Order: sequence, then structure tokens, then C-alpha cells
Amino acid sequence: MNTTENQNVSELGNEDPQLSFELDTEQVDAIVEALDGDDVELVRSLCLSLHYADLADLIEWVESAQRIRLLEALGEDFDAEILSELDDNVREEIIEYWDLENIVQAVSDLDSDDAVDLITDLDEDEQRQVLDAIAPEDRTLIEESLNYPEDSAGRLMQREVVTVPEFWNVGETIDFMRETAEEDPNALPDSFYDIYVVDPSHKPVGAVALSRMLRERRQVQMVSIMWSVMHVLPVTADQEDVAHLFRQRDLVSAPVVDTAGRLVGAITVDDVVDVIDDEHEEDMMLLAGVGEDDLYDAAIDTMRSRFSWLFVNLLTAVLASLVIGLFAATIEQLVALAVLMPIVASMGGNAGTQSLTVAVRGLATKELNPTNARRVIIKELIVGIVNGCLFGVITGVVSWYWFGDMTIGIVIAVAMVLNMIVASLVGTGIPILLERANIDPAIASSVFVTTVTDIVGFFAFLGLAAWFLM
Amino acid sequence: MNTTENQNVSELGNEDPQLSFELDTEQVDAIVEALDGDDVELVRSLCLSLHYADLADLIEWVESAQRIRLLEALGEDFDAEILSELDDNVREEIIEYWDLENIVQAVSDLDSDDAVDLITDLDEDEQRQVLDAIAPEDRTLIEESLNYPEDSAGRLMQREVVTVPEFWNVGETIDFMRETAEEDPNALPDSFYDIYVVDPSHKPVGAVALSRMLRERRQVQMVSIMWSVMHVLPVTADQEDVAHLFRQRDLVSAPVVDTAGRLVGAITVDDVVDVIDDEHEEDMMLLAGVGEDDLYDAAIDTMRSRFSWLFVNLLTAVLASLVIGLFAATIEQLVALAVLMPIVASMGGNAGTQSLTVAVRGLATKELNPTNARRVIIKELIVGIVNGCLFGVITGVVSWYWFGDMTIGIVIAVAMVLNMIVASLVGTGIPILLERANIDPAIASSVFVTTVTDIVGFFAFLGLAAWFLM
Repeated sequence: MNTTENQNVSELGNEDPQLSFELDTEQVDAIVEALDGDDVELVRSLCLSLHYADLADLIEWVESAQRIRLLEALGEDFDAEILSELDDNVREEIIEYWDLENIVQAVSDLDSDDAVDLITDLDEDEQRQVLDAIAPEDRTLIEESLNYPEDSAGRLMQREVVTVPEFWNVGETIDFMRETAEEDPNALPDSFYDIYVVDPSHKPVGAVALSRMLRERRQVQMVSIMWSVMHVLPVTADQEDVAHLFRQRDLVSAPVVDTAGRLVGAITVDDVVDVIDDEHEEDMMLLAGVGEDDLYDAAIDTMRSRFSWLFVNLLTAVLASLVIGLFAATIEQLVALAVLMPIVASMGGNAGTQSLTVAVRGLATKELNPTNARRVIIKELIVGIVNGCLFGVITGVVSWYWFGDMTIGIVIAVAMVLNMIVASLVGTGIPILLERANIDPAIASSVFVTTVTDIVGFFAFLGLAAWFLM
Repeated sequence: MNTTENQNVSELGNEDPQLSFELDTEQVDAIVEALDGDDVELVRSLCLSLHYADLADLIEWVESAQRIRLLEALGEDFDAEILSELDDNVREEIIEYWDLENIVQAVSDLDSDDAVDLITDLDEDEQRQVLDAIAPEDRTLIEESLNYPEDSAGRLMQREVVTVPEFWNVGETIDFMRETAEEDPNALPDSFYDIYVVDPSHKPVGAVALSRMLRERRQVQMVSIMWSVMHVLPVTADQEDVAHLFRQRDLVSAPVVDTAGRLVGAITVDDVVDVIDDEHEEDMMLLAGVGEDDLYDAAIDTMRSRFSWLFVNLLTAVLASLVIGLFAATIEQLVALAVLMPIVASMGGNAGTQSLTVAVRGLATKELNPTNARRVIIKELIVGIVNGCLFGVITGVVSWYWFGDMTIGIVIAVAMVLNMIVASLVGTGIPILLERANIDPAIASSVFVTTVTDIVGFFAFLGLAAWFLM
């Protein structure tokens, strides 16, 4: 089903090699034109030579109507692998359009981890129908995976692994693989990097990298070359922790065990790269108050998810306005305050967002942790004090000349110092406290930090002004 | 030099498996205490059993003084692999503390790609001295790599690759690897996943995955099982493009060729995971106006890099204040305007940041591209209009009740709609335009977007108020 294996086109032999992996705009335009012209043959000839990952990109980029036409044109030649490369929203759209037969075919064609992904998109009724329609051995594997919590190692893993008993040597292992491949090519995973040595109760006792095994003569025992300090992942491990482990240890694959310690699957790095990407996206989007799938969401869903975040922001903005309202009489007497007050709030908001971003990123990569948290907070405080003083002086002098009033300069300078110190503490402190309370620190988001800096900024500036200038 | 290979500790045999890869706080505290007590033996016994990646984490987390004491305690047992896991700032600190002999030893112990990383941290004079001191064959490889541009495939690749001629079969390949391993274990890369088939001029004609080769009998020709649609990377390819290719195609390794198309090395996925992480960090940090290495930067460097960004923000804030200044007379007559105006600016700023974040992320992953850019902009516009109207009505009604003046409600509602439409267009448009001009779109940063939304917000609200209320 992997179309790429059938291609004969070589991308080599280019005298001046260029990195030309992307679908170029001309190609895409040609396909879109063919789709709009409903030229099925042209669409097929342009698309069938594409790599499935490129085809997945193309399907994501075109409009819904073009997408359906593209599916119709591809027909039977639609490669199930495409589905595992698609964004969730786009995949759901395709599945809704498909009839049961197509879905059953796709589930049977995919590796177990990708098949599970696909099935979770279906409603319960459809899940049942698809599971009933596929081969019993596939069904058992998939049903087991569905029992693991979402975003767990159990969902991420491939069920197909190569295992050998402790008493085998290199020669026996190689012979076993050759024989298995001849008898049933699907019994071996598509690609793998490690062979696991298991004891009689199927607990992993070590791993042998293929590149290690190929250095050794046939009579060498597998146990003598196996790597026993493996990182064994429990099926229930959170995918974020799995990603952290792969990244920190530069792993390519890791075994997954059930609660009894028996080997049930393996996670490979290509799935982990997707998790790393997703986690990045989540952090970045949360910080800005946007849903994760925003780009491919329908406008109505985007509206709804952004609305809630903006509504929180409205409440906090009203709070800041109430603070200003307290000093309405002062502003009425000295309108320069209204002109200058946004500067104090804006500088605090930006300084706070700087601290916040560094803290959220540090917590996500575990580089900010209990060992150095105190030191990081102190450093942020120092940065806040020094930059606060510098900007206090600059803004103070500018304001003094602007309005010809030294006291206004002093008031804004002091308010600026205060607000930037608060900004650095709040920007670093809120995410650290959230992390301790087991809440995703990215949710601290600019909105909360800027609420504090707005309120402190307005209050400090207008309060000091009311005190000294009136 | 890889300490982990000598460990006998098994992390297995745990009846209730837990993901316990992290250095736990107790362990770290014990080491820090031993460091502070200058108990060299205790430090060594606590540290020498750690994985080099954990040790690297520990070195990053402790204070500078503790770091030096830790290095002294480890002495000869410092594993060069630790260096390649360290943050740049921390690594530079260690190199500055070391004498030449240590550096030469580390360079000789590391794989070529990591050795190059290390050498680029040295100044030119030291580079020369180190290169003169290492073995000639290592020197040639490293000097070649140093000639490639920074952040290129050439810098990222490992020079050690396994290649076979077109006429070999599986058996000959396996025999060759076994013999090479016996004669000179360092001639083969530490770990690899593909064997490259090359023509007589050393141009790659295909790749055979180890897991594919092991399925085949000895007499099978390598060319008959090789995968010829490889993704060949030119040495000069940008690492960001390399990362995109690995991610999109789920690659584990890819060959790198020089300008004449000859195979010169290979990039493996573990190095790419680091690049993905770095690129993400860069985007996130740029958006907030923070330097990339902020967490491990000395306070003075952090201050300096954040200062420049905050200074830009100050200029833009003053610009917004000038706009307010235009309407000073209006505010003097109706102080409610000063109370309400930050709401319009704040909502615009947040809506703009939402659009901006989605656009920057989409451009970084190439999910936002010429094919769908127009559609994304239209969608953002719709979201901006609808949410603008909703929040316009909410804010309008609240303001009307608050100040008992319907005209104030209408004015703020209209200003809100205008500002949120502008926010969505600017948030999406600026990064797309920057990308077209070949400038990193993340640099568009919230500061520029909020400048526009502040100015538009204040101008629309106060301008409308001056027109209708005076």
C-alpha cells in the first residue's frame, strides 16, 4: 500500500544537488487547476507519482470541495498512509465522507499505531462496525491499544516487535528473520532498529541494535552483545514524558511493557518527532490563547475557541479600567496622565511576557526545575530591577521634557521601575506555581501576566500622580 | 569513552514499572550538598553511575562555582559525550576553564559532528592549536566540516558512513562489516540504520535499511533490495529544511552529498530532533523578544538582549501616546474616554497576537503556504469581523450602562469592530509578507502587531468620540 515503494523515479543524478523535497507551487497550481476543471485523468497523473506525505500536504492545503474531488479521482489508489500524515480536522472530514468499506480497508492496511489513531476518530457505533469487519488478529491488537489512556505510550507504540530468547546467537537470529520474512512478510515490523531479548515470561532483558549485531560473527550470543540498561516504558507513561526521554537520551526506539513487565510493543523515534511537534504547538498556542488545530479548524470553531480567551481578556481589561476609574478626578485635572499611562502598562506587559516565555519554555524542557528555580527567579528579579531603572530614567527624562514638569518625570520613572520588577516576578512566578500545582504552565498565558502588569502599571502611575501632583 | 556502555546496572526487573529516567530531586540535592561540602569521593560515587545525559543536565542546573568543583571531582572520568548535550553557554564556560590537553582529548573522543560543534566554540588561535594536536585523519574530516556554512547539512552530518559497491550482495556486505569491526572498531559509525550503495565515483545510487537487509538471504544483490528514491541532501542545505524533510517523510537517516554529488556523510534523526527543538525555541523566543539562550545566559547578557527589544517597545508606546495626545482636549472634557480606551487597545492586541501566533507557526511548519494563504487570510478576516462584532456589542452595552451614555457605547463598539478586524489582518499579514521577503516571520513579534492595534485602537476610539461626543 506504500506507493513510494513502487516508484522508479530516482531523485539522484543531479549534478548540482538541490534540496527539492517540497511540492513546488507550480505543481500544486497545476493540480488545483485540474481539480477545478474536473479533469480526473490529469489529477491522477499528477498525483499518483507523489510521495504519500506530499499528497497528504496537498489534501490539507486545498479547499473542502477540491478535497472531495481529489479523493474521488484517487479512488482505490488512495494510500492509507496518507491518513496518518493528516491533521485531525482534515482526517475527520475524509472519514465522514467515506463509507465503511473504505475505512475497514484503511484500518487493515495501516500499522497498529496508525490504525488506532484512525479508529479513535470514529463514533462508538462506527468503531464497533469497523472492528467487527477486520481480521480477528488485527482486532485483538487494536482493542488492546484502545484500552490504554489517550496520549499514553500504549497508544503511541507499534505492536509488532522482533524478540528472541536469551539462548539464541547472532546466526540463529538472522536465520529466524529470513525465515519469518519468507513465510509471512507482515509478521515483521516495516522498519525497526533494535531486537529485544526476552526471558521465558516475555519480559525484556536487553536490546541489540541492528548495527551492533551486524558487526558480530554468527556464533556470538545475543546476550553478550545486548544493551541491558534500556529505558523501559510502561504502557501508561504520558507521551510528553516519552518524548522527553527520547530527546534527552537520543533514543531511536524503546520497548514498552505492561503492568506485569511483559514486552507488549515498541515506540520508534518517528512517532516521537510528531509528539515533540505537537507539544511545541500546544505550548505556543496556549501562550497566545489559541486552539491547537487552529489553522485547519473551520472559521466557526476558530471563532468559538478564540472568543473564550478574548472574553477572559475583556474581563481583565475592564478590571484595569476600573483602576483607572478610581483616578478619574486626577486625570481630569492633568490630562498628561492619560497620555502617558499606556507607556507604563505596555512596558510592564512586554517585560512580563519575556519572563513568561522563558519560564514556560524552561519548564517544558525541564531545564527549569526545583534545583535552579530559586536562582532563575533571582536572576529575573535582577534583570527586572536593572532594566526597570534604565527605562525609568529614559521615560522620566522624556516625559519631563514633553510636559515640562519634572514631577511627572519622577512619577512615571518610579511607576516604571515598580511595574517592571512586578512583571519579572509574575512572569516567572506564575508558571512555576502552576507547574507545582500540576497545571500546564503555558495556560498562564500573556493574558494573566498582562492583567497584573496593567493593573499595577495604572495603579502605581496614577496613584503616585494623585499623591505628588495634586 | 561512552560510560553507559560500561554500566551493568539494569533498570529492569521492576514489578510495577515506572518511567523513572529523570534525575530525582533527592539525588540532585545530595550531589549539590556533597559539592558544597567539597566531598570529592561522595560526588564521584554519586555521579559516576549517572548517564552522561543526566550528568549534562546536572552540570547545567548547578551554579558556576559548583560546576567547576564538579568538573574537578570527575577529572579524567569526564565523558566527552556530556559536552554535546550541554547548552552553548555552559559548554563555553567549561572550555574556558579547561586547558588545551582536555580539549584535544575531548575532540578526539567525539564523533565528527560533535567534535566540530566543540571546535567552533573556540577562538581562532585555539582552534589552530587543537587541530594541530589531533590525529591527521580526524583533522582532515573536521577541517572539511568547518568549511561548510553554519547551520548547514554539512555541519550536522556524521562523516562516518557504511557504503558498498553496486555489485555486492547481502552476504558480502555482512562479511565486510564483521571484518571491519574486528580490524578497526572505530571505522564503523557508532550506530547507523542504512547502508548506502555507491557507484564507482562514490555517488549514492540507493540505500538499504538494516531491517530490510536482514530479511534477505546472503546471495541477494544489494541493488535489488535498495531503495532508490532517497532524499539526498546537499551539504549546503539549511538545517531547517533538513528538519522539515525528516519530519515530513518520517526519515531516520539521509545521505549528504557534495556539489559533485559524491556521498560525504549522513544525517541521523537524533541530530534532527535537536534542530527541531532549537528552531521551535527560536520561534517562541523571537515572538516574545527574548534571546535564544536566555535561561543559561548571565544576567548581564539577558538584560542587554531584552533591553533592545523593550526599547523598540518603548518607541512604539510613545507613538501610541502621541496619538492619545492628539485628543487631550477631548479627554479633558470627558474623562470616561481615558477610562475606556485601554479596553479597545488590549482586545485588539490580544486578537492580533492570536492571529500572529497561528500564522508564525503555520509558516514554520510550511502548513501555511502560497496555496492556502489567501484562504487563511479570508478566514482570519471573517473571525475578526464576527468576534469584533460580538465584543463590540458586549463592550458597548457595558460602557453604556457604566457611564449612562448610549453614544459612548456606540463609539466604543465601532472602535472595537474596527480594531479587531485590523488585528486579524495585521496579525496574519505581517508574518506572511516577512516570509515573502525572506525574513524570519517570528521577528514580526507581538511588539509590532500591538503597536498597530494600540495606535488604531486609540485613534479610532478617541477620534470617533471627538466627532460624535463633542
